[in-house]
Amino acid sequence: MSEPIKFYFDFSSPYAYFGALKIDGLAASFDREVDWHPILLGAVFKNTGNVSLANQPIKSDYAKHDWERLSRFMDIPWTLPEKFPIGTMAAARAYYWLKESDPVFAKKFGLACFNKYFAEGIDITGREIVADIGEDIGLNREELLTAIASDEFKQRLRNETQAATDAGVCGAPYFIVDGEPFWGSDRLWMIKRWLKSGGW
Amino acid sequence: MSEPIKFYFDFSSPYAYFGALKIDGLAASFDREVDWHPILLGAVFKNTGNVSLANQPIKSDYAKHDWERLSRFMDIPWTLPEKFPIGTMAAARAYYWLKESDPVFAKKFGLACFNKYFAEGIDITGREIVADIGEDIGLNREELLTAIASDEFKQRLRNETQAATDAGVCGAPYFIVDGEPFWGSDRLWMIKRWLKSGGW
Repeated sequence: MSEPIKFYFDFSSPYAYFGALKIDGLAASFDREVDWHPILLGAVFKNTGNVSLANQPIKSDYAKHDWERLSRFMDIPWTLPEKFPIGTMAAARAYYWLKESDPVFAKKFGLACFNKYFAEGIDITGREIVADIGEDIGLNREELLTAIASDEFKQRLRNETQAATDAGVCGAPYFIVDGEPFWGSDRLWMIKRWLKSGGW
Repeated sequence: MSEPIKFYFDFSSPYAYFGALKIDGLAASFDREVDWHPILLGAVFKNTGNVSLANQPIKSDYAKHDWERLSRFMDIPWTLPEKFPIGTMAAARAYYWLKESDPVFAKKFGLACFNKYFAEGIDITGREIVADIGEDIGLNREELLTAIASDEFKQRLRNETQAATDAGVCGAPYFIVDGEPFWGSDRLWMIKRWLKSGGW
């Protein structure tokens, strides 16, 4: 059994949202699993010297146009949230808490977070809204809030972000397939080709 | 007759090189022409606040890997030139000089410049090497050198770069199809879809 495809993302990244909705299906068609790793892109950018889109108005205008178009072309619901980008610590910590006990359910939660933010346009920065999302899919609100506030999962998210940086992650979505890196939701066709050819 | 697809690029951009080898064929399959506009990406980046790859080592490592892989996936010869990136004023000015009299032949020259730099790995910064490239395809060496040194084509390149910036160009390759912008050689599939659907 091959090791799972690694998928690094920030819940605040539109391109990661598009990738998140497609990667598991793509992987499954090659009998592969996907291991999701939410991280904090701001910390990654600090390391890579990248500049946030928010500070690049012309690129940012292009990206806004590109997201709308991608949503049509990939048939994925889309809205540009009023508050964008946002900090996603709460969602990411909750994700790792869930992942410990049930990685498959964690993805369901992850997709619900993405959906709340990029399909409904609702800011998911706060702990309470993240708890709402969890409650909606049957999680215990208090347990989830406790995990978000815990040192254990604060540290876990820091470690995951550092590990991603160490692995060369320089944006989101970032995929690693058998050691081969693919950056961007526009690289899904290359992942497909890579898997089809058995890695060439 | 629809207006030509606009193609903005810098001769020093690997992604533009990959795009240059594919865009005319793609356009032709939809009975469309392509109008090439070499520009100076450094000036564009100054305007957009973008940072050159050379100053982003982690992204740069990824890009190097990506170029090699793209060359395999797109079946295009590739070498990372020892000197990279470079200034491409000479090639770009010569391009506009040629374009005035023969836009089709100008593309032949443009492809020869790209080939010299990214397939053979030879630095094309200097005027003499650009004159060599021209001579190889039958151009008059002295006329070409005169054009490169002329105020007319220095100014033309400045104007073209400014016009590209004004049009929202924020990287290379950058394509505009009937007013619709597409940035990146990884956006060719979207251009194809756009043309196929009649612009949606």
